[in-house]
Amino acid sequence: MSAKSVYSFDVEPECVDFSRRMTITAMGRDILNTAGRDAQLKGFGVDVLSKTNLSWALERFAMEVNFRPKQYSKYSIATWVKENSALVSTRDFELALEDGTIFSRAISQWCLIDLLSRRPVLLQKIMPLCEPYVCPNIELPISQPMRLREVPLSSFKEHEVVYSDVDFNSHMNTMNYLQLMFDMLPLEMFKENKGLRMDVGFMHEAHYGDKLLVGYGQNDNISNFEIKRDTEVLVRARMEWSEL
Amino acid sequence: MSAKSVYSFDVEPECVDFSRRMTITAMGRDILNTAGRDAQLKGFGVDVLSKTNLSWALERFAMEVNFRPKQYSKYSIATWVKENSALVSTRDFELALEDGTIFSRAISQWCLIDLLSRRPVLLQKIMPLCEPYVCPNIELPISQPMRLREVPLSSFKEHEVVYSDVDFNSHMNTMNYLQLMFDMLPLEMFKENKGLRMDVGFMHEAHYGDKLLVGYGQNDNISNFEIKRDTEVLVRARMEWSEL
Repeated sequence: MSAKSVYSFDVEPECVDFSRRMTITAMGRDILNTAGRDAQLKGFGVDVLSKTNLSWALERFAMEVNFRPKQYSKYSIATWVKENSALVSTRDFELALEDGTIFSRAISQWCLIDLLSRRPVLLQKIMPLCEPYVCPNIELPISQPMRLREVPLSSFKEHEVVYSDVDFNSHMNTMNYLQLMFDMLPLEMFKENKGLRMDVGFMHEAHYGDKLLVGYGQNDNISNFEIKRDTEVLVRARMEWSEL
Repeated sequence: MSAKSVYSFDVEPECVDFSRRMTITAMGRDILNTAGRDAQLKGFGVDVLSKTNLSWALERFAMEVNFRPKQYSKYSIATWVKENSALVSTRDFELALEDGTIFSRAISQWCLIDLLSRRPVLLQKIMPLCEPYVCPNIELPISQPMRLREVPLSSFKEHEVVYSDVDFNSHMNTMNYLQLMFDMLPLEMFKENKGLRMDVGFMHEAHYGDKLLVGYGQNDNISNFEIKRDTEVLVRARMEWSEL
């Protein structure tokens, strides 16, 4: 039972940007949907957890992108639960083209939250459900998600959380935070097919109507971001770009 | 050859809003992708047209939505070319659940444009390609897209066209205009499963970096919208809501 599970995808027109290559947020969205679908199929998805007022919440995310596939490419996402600690479940991903070429790898760290208090609870509560699926021996050759600290930022943009931003809980969709960040970058960043190492930390959730401030700063080949509601930091991200 | 073509879809998590029902923009996106895919399969898609510097441009769109399907529903889009006039090609759509229940119908009117001048040209140029697929005898029981005139609007919001808004031409994605409009509406509009008749007129294209003004006004059960760049009207829409 403890093996990679593989899901198939197509790079549809709505997944590409002006360069006709898949956007990072489209990859991220497919990755997170795969996490949800795989957990559901194996019996520890939000459908089961919500019956006891529990849910998964994404805490940290790391992703490395070697290149962005072209429109209409067929690709697959392999995923597996890497390990469960007292408070964090780590799920890994490998994205590959049809010929087996891996173009992205990602690590996601989830905590289990109580839906009423929105606070983390011990994974122990659901361990019997997901423990059989843990694959400690599959190695992913990228480093763990970084802990992101405050860094100086130089440009800022306001965003009010609107209808199209929110999920069924009226919380902002995870990938919409990242979209706000990518939209701060100069368009030139996406013209060439650059490599990327991205680290994201999710601290607090934004809700419908919240007024957010998106901060961005560039330091050599590193883009830093912070999304705040008043003085509260909701999300931080660090993107390290490399030429191919 | 002149018959409906049918394509299958799933209502994935990214297609639903907080009510866990499919958004109108997700339906619209699937409809427009289906138009593109069907034209391509039949030999008069943008891939073929672009070789002679031609392309399709959406001019008017009408859509009626009886209800919005729930997340994970399976559904199909049937499409056919209804007629070709000197300047306009009309393509119809029918959206149905697996059990055959039709939940939406749409009519799209396209003109053929020269990619260099961005001006309409006569359809005659490509008539031999698409004429065999015209289905004049298939009736769709909704009225043709309305011609929308200026109406008084009461609230306004600015939007700068960003990276995630634009397609491969650095033009704003069609459905992003509509998303800006839906984001102006009170969230309550989407809580209940209302019926909708929507008419949209596309006059001019927005480009990356353009500063747009989205205007909205409510008149009983009718929502009116206009998107402008300075004094130039780019898109108008009229949405007539009905209780189910």
